[in-house]
Amino acid sequence: VAEILSGTFEGKTTGAPIALFIKNKDADSSSYEPIKELLRPGHANFTYLKKYGIFDYRGGGRASARETACRVAAGVIAKKILDRENISLLAYLKQVGPISITTDQEPLGPLFCPDRAAEAEMITFLTKILEEGDSIGGIVELRTSPLPIGLGDPIYEKLEANLAKAMMSLPASKGFEIGSGFASVLMRGSEHNDLFTEQGIETNHAGGVLGGISTGEPLVIRVAFKPTSSIKKPQETLTVQGKAALFTLPQGSRHDPCVAIRAVPVVEAMAALVLADALLYAKAIAL
Amino acid sequence: VAEILSGTFEGKTTGAPIALFIKNKDADSSSYEPIKELLRPGHANFTYLKKYGIFDYRGGGRASARETACRVAAGVIAKKILDRENISLLAYLKQVGPISITTDQEPLGPLFCPDRAAEAEMITFLTKILEEGDSIGGIVELRTSPLPIGLGDPIYEKLEANLAKAMMSLPASKGFEIGSGFASVLMRGSEHNDLFTEQGIETNHAGGVLGGISTGEPLVIRVAFKPTSSIKKPQETLTVQGKAALFTLPQGSRHDPCVAIRAVPVVEAMAALVLADALLYAKAIAL
Amino acid sequence: VAEILSGTFEGKTTGAPIALFIKNKDADSSSYEPIKELLRPGHANFTYLKKYGIFDYRGGGRASARETACRVAAGVIAKKILDRENISLLAYLKQVGPISITTDQEPLGPLFCPDRAAEAEMITFLTKILEEGDSIGGIVELRTSPLPIGLGDPIYEKLEANLAKAMMSLPASKGFEIGSGFASVLMRGSEHNDLFTEQGIETNHAGGVLGGISTGEPLVIRVAFKPTSSIKKPQETLTVQGKAALFTLPQGSRHDPCVAIRAVPVVEAMAALVLADALLYAKAIAL
Amino acid sequence: VAEILSGTFEGKTTGAPIALFIKNKDADSSSYEPIKELLRPGHANFTYLKKYGIFDYRGGGRASARETACRVAAGVIAKKILDRENISLLAYLKQVGPISITTDQEPLGPLFCPDRAAEAEMITFLTKILEEGDSIGGIVELRTSPLPIGLGDPIYEKLEANLAKAMMSLPASKGFEIGSGFASVLMRGSEHNDLFTEQGIETNHAGGVLGGISTGEPLVIRVAFKPTSSIKKPQETLTVQGKAALFTLPQGSRHDPCVAIRAVPVVEAMAALVLADALLYAKAIAL
Repeated sequence: VAEILSGTFEGKTTGAPIALFIKNKDADSSSYEPIKELLRPGHANFTYLKKYGIFDYRGGGRASARETACRVAAGVIAKKILDRENISLLAYLKQVGPISITTDQEPLGPLFCPDRAAEAEMITFLTKILEEGDSIGGIVELRTSPLPIGLGDPIYEKLEANLAKAMMSLPASKGFEIGSGFASVLMRGSEHNDLFTEQGIETNHAGGVLGGISTGEPLVIRVAFKPTSSIKKPQETLTVQGKAALFTLPQGSRHDPCVAIRAVPVVEAMAALVLADALLYAKAIAL
Repeated sequence: VAEILSGTFEGKTTGAPIALFIKNKDADSSSYEPIKELLRPGHANFTYLKKYGIFDYRGGGRASARETACRVAAGVIAKKILDRENISLLAYLKQVGPISITTDQEPLGPLFCPDRAAEAEMITFLTKILEEGDSIGGIVELRTSPLPIGLGDPIYEKLEANLAKAMMSLPASKGFEIGSGFASVLMRGSEHNDLFTEQGIETNHAGGVLGGISTGEPLVIRVAFKPTSSIKKPQETLTVQGKAALFTLPQGSRHDPCVAIRAVPVVEAMAALVLADALLYAKAIAL
Repeated sequence: VAEILSGTFEGKTTGAPIALFIKNKDADSSSYEPIKELLRPGHANFTYLKKYGIFDYRGGGRASARETACRVAAGVIAKKILDRENISLLAYLKQVGPISITTDQEPLGPLFCPDRAAEAEMITFLTKILEEGDSIGGIVELRTSPLPIGLGDPIYEKLEANLAKAMMSLPASKGFEIGSGFASVLMRGSEHNDLFTEQGIETNHAGGVLGGISTGEPLVIRVAFKPTSSIKKPQETLTVQGKAALFTLPQGSRHDPCVAIRAVPVVEAMAALVLADALLYAKAIAL
Repeated sequence: VAEILSGTFEGKTTGAPIALFIKNKDADSSSYEPIKELLRPGHANFTYLKKYGIFDYRGGGRASARETACRVAAGVIAKKILDRENISLLAYLKQVGPISITTDQEPLGPLFCPDRAAEAEMITFLTKILEEGDSIGGIVELRTSPLPIGLGDPIYEKLEANLAKAMMSLPASKGFEIGSGFASVLMRGSEHNDLFTEQGIETNHAGGVLGGISTGEPLVIRVAFKPTSSIKKPQETLTVQGKAALFTLPQGSRHDPCVAIRAVPVVEAMAALVLADALLYAKAIAL
């Protein structure tokens, strides 16, 4: 549960910064004891150790996905600001390994997936992955209601650039795209350009921005997440002292077969934060 | 040519900011006269007009790719800083439409492509695109020499997040990925994790970062560029006043069939700027 | 007591941000009940109310000097960084109303005053002020050990400019000066210039900086604090609704006759924070 | 003359950054040749040399007051923004050495002084200083029309803190105060508090801010400037190599007996820039 330490009074914000505090009540540091001397494959304890000369082995420190709980809490507040301008956002699971959705119109299921049939397939697939003690990557997609025109700024604070930074700051994210994204590479200009017509903008290959500024169309972005680094399968590694060792996940450790699923609400929260910032900045220049 | 307005004296930097000034000597605003009242498909004059209530129709203003000349000039200075730490960078054309390189080991050709055979194919393909008055997308890849360990910071200033922001601030970029990128979605964790061994880190699916911090491996990133928006084919559009019209590129306008090619040195420059910043920040905390 | 919520492990910093949390255990909001509808003379509830449309009447919100407790706690950490470069700081009470120190060499007394005789006079004077239910202004001075040469930057991040911002952000501060300060107005250039000699810099009218950068001499600054706004004497004011009213400090309210005294450790903490920042930035450019 | 390099089109701003370029047409570097190896008393070439290991001896580099020409040019634009909210500013010379104004209601004279009689005295005094080859300090005061209520933010971006930073970033400034300033030290709280009455706020000891936020009263600030460092009188100094030498201002060098006079328009420009920023930020939070 997120506790509000400051910034509200009698149910309203006061203008003071809102400090949120989430206490990890489920922490059990002792389980990390057996691996405290090991570099964890795919994890940041190696880089943290090299950069800072010290590493808090209990659960990954700031490199742990636990960190994203604060982002989700902050996103709730950002959404209240966006609500006032009738901006809504929806993130959902688009792909798990080779299984992709074919509709995004159904209500989200337990995996935050908007395609019942695809989700059933994903669950079967993930069960198998879990049995193998392994993990798999996935893609999260986000789309918004039509944005107000004019959010974002040229060059330095382009809306898609700030969204990219936000998403690539998430643990395990390896790629970001907006609108047509990497698929645009195969397209012709005559096909990709979204035409302005008297009925509005026809297509949305742009994904809701032109030149860093919102067009009034829905924002559409996607984030690729690598397979979870913590797996049950034993893996070769080194000790902190540089000697060969075998890394095995401690008994009772959480093992999440696809980190993209948990990332869905985080992607939504980060997009809300970026959009709320862009909205406030847009007001500043409106003389 | 970039003129240095300040910051150097007798061939050395003085500590003062370096101001670079590039005068566009080839500007011919009159050619834009016929299209000054039209929304350009795929261009930002629509969003600029809506945001600022005014639009400098001569060539796209800050949304023009001309803007990137300054980035390249600044990148030259950043590279001098990186040189001192023996960091080198190489960006190259990886893909044009459906044609991908199969080697990155040959010297760069006229399209900044490190694969002679693929480049020949690309040239044939682009000639055809050009004849059709159309354009096509492409992918630029960048790789560096092994970075010093410890560049980048957790959460707020992750190296990959700052690179993503830099690349998604480029005109026409639609996607960014690091290391395995979107391909990681299909991979297993047991396959994706780069193992620490006594001989070093074996693979580099991470692309040179773990938890936002450089691992000591080469940085590897890719940027997707949409097909050039300005094409010779006439396209339906609206006037600034909202009436249907036909957009035709003025006679003598430059028409570039694949913007990704010109983007190669810009990607390299932006990466140099991000890395130089990260290098300076890393020094600040080294007590 | 300041509780450390994050950033340390086994007695060392981990590189993660250090979050300090100070719970106000002595809060009694009920005492503010009688004055919740009144504008407090000399206080910020008027401007907060107008700016935010809401005011947390319980003790002044962020405009309360309680806020400075966090600055002092953070200053303790900044001092540990400065210690490593053998930089020490000492702030002390220089003046209370008309009573000024004549030495700064004696150990600090209960009012953080380095002049026993002056402090005794101050105490007598403040007792009288307190009996009158009134308050008085004061001056805090800070001096450091000789700084490393080169802290601070030209124009945008001048050391004295950042110190001025830090000090003028303190509740009740009305003036800032460095070195000769306002007294320099009466001086000749021939007298004010600190001459470079083979034995070092002779005088220190500059107060330790030239052109925004530390000279290697001690930093010397002074901050003027207005008389405490909360006084026992009843004062005319308005209600929040704009009607004339009489403001009387609630029974049992703290009444501090000279806010400058409590400001002494805060000035020291803020100077430590500014210097620690300047020190880290100076490292960043040291190629 | 300031040349506009970007940001305007057909007499209007386009939303793009406005780049101003002022070419120094009166530069004669040869006159600095004789003093290129000398530390200039009261100047920053000592600190620049130590910090950067290099010094551009031609006129002081960024430590030269020439730098403030850009601030004045930028201030003109800031004032246009303030005009739209009917905010006006007036800076004037308040004191030169021991000579202070007794009125601020007369039109500004050649020294930017609003008191004819005092200005005549100042001119006589400065003539004598000039004959002595010496210089003297001065005070600049600024007052604005009543500001909109609500400019500035608590704690981190207090209006007076940002003004202090701006003013202490000016060459030769040694002190800053707002409202009652250092004189508040001698005042009682009962006298200093500006009472809220049905007719408005009676006095303005606060100088137009409470808790970092504008009260709706005029802003009143003062800046102390040291005597000009460059004087005709020869002064002992060191060479760059550390040997004793005599510093004499080169023949034909400008010698300004009181830098505060030239600082008047710069103080006004800097205040305009800070207020324009505060105005734009205030809009951002106005949901």
